[in-house]
Amino acid sequence: MSDPASTPESARQDPGRRRFLQGSVALGAALVAGARRPSAAQAQPAPDDPSKVLGGPMRPYGERARFEQAVREIAPESKTDERGSSLTPLGETLGIITPSALHFVVQGSLPDIDPTKHRLLIHGLVDRPVIMTVEDIKRLPSTSRILFLECAGNTMSEWRAPIGKTVQGTHGRTSCSEWTGVPLALLLREVGVQQGAAWIIAEGADTNGNEHSIPLAKALDDILVAYGQNGEALRPENGYPLRLIVPGWEGSANVKWLRRITVVDRPYMTRMESTVHAALMPDGKARQLGFVMEAKSVITFPSGGQRLPGPGLYEIRGLAWSGRGLVRRVEVSTDGGKTWRDARLQEPVLPIAHTRFRLDWQWDGREAVLQSRCTDETGYVQPTLAALVQVRGLNSTIFNNAIQSWQVAADGSVHNVHP
Amino acid sequence: MSDPASTPESARQDPGRRRFLQGSVALGAALVAGARRPSAAQAQPAPDDPSKVLGGPMRPYGERARFEQAVREIAPESKTDERGSSLTPLGETLGIITPSALHFVVQGSLPDIDPTKHRLLIHGLVDRPVIMTVEDIKRLPSTSRILFLECAGNTMSEWRAPIGKTVQGTHGRTSCSEWTGVPLALLLREVGVQQGAAWIIAEGADTNGNEHSIPLAKALDDILVAYGQNGEALRPENGYPLRLIVPGWEGSANVKWLRRITVVDRPYMTRMESTVHAALMPDGKARQLGFVMEAKSVITFPSGGQRLPGPGLYEIRGLAWSGRGLVRRVEVSTDGGKTWRDARLQEPVLPIAHTRFRLDWQWDGREAVLQSRCTDETGYVQPTLAALVQVRGLNSTIFNNAIQSWQVAADGSVHNVHP
Repeated sequence: MSDPASTPESARQDPGRRRFLQGSVALGAALVAGARRPSAAQAQPAPDDPSKVLGGPMRPYGERARFEQAVREIAPESKTDERGSSLTPLGETLGIITPSALHFVVQGSLPDIDPTKHRLLIHGLVDRPVIMTVEDIKRLPSTSRILFLECAGNTMSEWRAPIGKTVQGTHGRTSCSEWTGVPLALLLREVGVQQGAAWIIAEGADTNGNEHSIPLAKALDDILVAYGQNGEALRPENGYPLRLIVPGWEGSANVKWLRRITVVDRPYMTRMESTVHAALMPDGKARQLGFVMEAKSVITFPSGGQRLPGPGLYEIRGLAWSGRGLVRRVEVSTDGGKTWRDARLQEPVLPIAHTRFRLDWQWDGREAVLQSRCTDETGYVQPTLAALVQVRGLNSTIFNNAIQSWQVAADGSVHNVHP
Repeated sequence: MSDPASTPESARQDPGRRRFLQGSVALGAALVAGARRPSAAQAQPAPDDPSKVLGGPMRPYGERARFEQAVREIAPESKTDERGSSLTPLGETLGIITPSALHFVVQGSLPDIDPTKHRLLIHGLVDRPVIMTVEDIKRLPSTSRILFLECAGNTMSEWRAPIGKTVQGTHGRTSCSEWTGVPLALLLREVGVQQGAAWIIAEGADTNGNEHSIPLAKALDDILVAYGQNGEALRPENGYPLRLIVPGWEGSANVKWLRRITVVDRPYMTRMESTVHAALMPDGKARQLGFVMEAKSVITFPSGGQRLPGPGLYEIRGLAWSGRGLVRRVEVSTDGGKTWRDARLQEPVLPIAHTRFRLDWQWDGREAVLQSRCTDETGYVQPTLAALVQVRGLNSTIFNNAIQSWQVAADGSVHNVHP
């Protein structure tokens, strides 16, 4: 039996596998550069046999391994270091939970909020306006849900041409967390909503001045005033210490750094609603207040920028989700949409959560175009880009839930294409 | 309407609530000391109105807010900074996912492993022994599951007397993550298990020399060779880059830093199995190879070291789990076990996962003893400590799944008691 520390038999005998390893290392190096961190290679090398060397101490709050380098890349349209978007590296995430440190971010700048100073004001058309501390809110009856969040602008670069090089670039504005908080309906019952109330306006405490109109019916249904994310407090980028979670609705409605809820009689057509989140249709009218994120899916492996080391058996992996509820079915095509096979859905399949799908695929080494297509519990089927453009035209790029195509070239390289 | 930045009406009018806030701050300060971190108070104060101050930039890999200070405290029996246990702060976690940075740890020391050097050897009674790289394993068909892990020694301090001051001290050796990996059954099919094989021995690459015997039937059922935790690579403390996940079985069987699996004909009675994990029974015989973590639950709020600011409505919160499958029912008593009420179970209830339970409770300000009792899908009911001791005696302290009691004193302070 050979020594586990030496070059393995399998690598020596399979040059294809060795090429795949080299491809992975190169990708890691590119990400290191993006992160502006010292690369692991610059540090002390790890011991050849860790069982012979005293390791490190226990740590009060853990960190990831120094060899792991996946980062949120900053989206090209970001204006400054503070203002813009950074994207979840979907090509490297596993399962359905997104690590909080890699949750996508859209921000004006990242506010520094002391939770003991922070307050939530609820007023407007209510009988008993209230100002609450974070501790006040944490004491109330609570719940937790695993839910995706997606920015309405996710995949907007792909509307006219295949622009994103990787699945992080094309689809990195969606993430999934376990959120914990208090039902907004409970708070609204406490303050006493008055006759004539029909909407709420939610406002954040950051420099971006994000205000969002939300129908009262949704507020009384399933919205959370959340303080927890994946078992601990919200991360600063995700709204610490309080945010709205509006299940299935566009990211911007899930107002971060929440400091005010005003109960009103109509939508207020705030800056977001009247500008970038109003989709200009072919007839010149605007599609406004269209909040729900419709069914969508994307293959995360193989995806743009990755490379298959050679013909053989692979597991196609991806994510599917729907703001309407459960993902019922994900089909995968390896021939550009001519034929489809059902993928396996990872249990548990949860409503309004990322759903991981998987399908074994024998690649014969010839060019292939990979696609996935999601059907949700309402029967809605994820559309082709052509079908989407036919209805919505070319004036607007938001709410793009079209089928994504990845071309696997004969050399194993994977590219974003519009077939 | 008053200014949200000023002292809130609710705090001014309710001195009880203000006392609760002070209690929380004191607890936070104690945790900071344990963490040996600079406290948030020593740093720049946060702005009074964050919407008026340019905040920070986007960050490639996020961190928690500087005001959050929950840490893994080191268990008292730990021998050195390297060797021992550190505990999940269950009194502060939310939902069912444990943040990876706060997952409990039992270690000899923390190995520094380069994943490109690491190998997994599978040999013994097999037709085709193999040495695999981490990349080899990641390429194979995979799955993810949300599962708790609990150390057999969790709650061992409580066998004879109420020792732990907090729920972190009494129950902090259980955590719950979404794990991703390859079914061990798939690897064993590939290597070809031979006639006569009945057990496997799994070995870690750390200084602790953890080896564990596991029946082949379990290995062919639901064990994972895992590389992912909560959406990214395993954290170093949790086995980076490879570990076993053995659903429902004692933590030590879930061998971390996995480097070798030997297929054998019998259990090998390794150090762990023949010493601390062999429970000495009243008749002098040892209860060995008893792997399954039976149904258990604990109230995390109110729990030891916390303080209720005064009479009023509270939400009792806790966690329940069973290595046998689903939690079917959690009952809560506020009178030391005389009467019980059913708690709400947070959906989704997943097999072999932490299950969050909640129950509204009107505290009248008199002394109360809080308990929770879990029933799993097999019908097994979590026992009292007296019932457990009657069967197992006082020679051994592991596998303690007894009902925990927290006494709420008239002043609102909460204490660990054996009523």
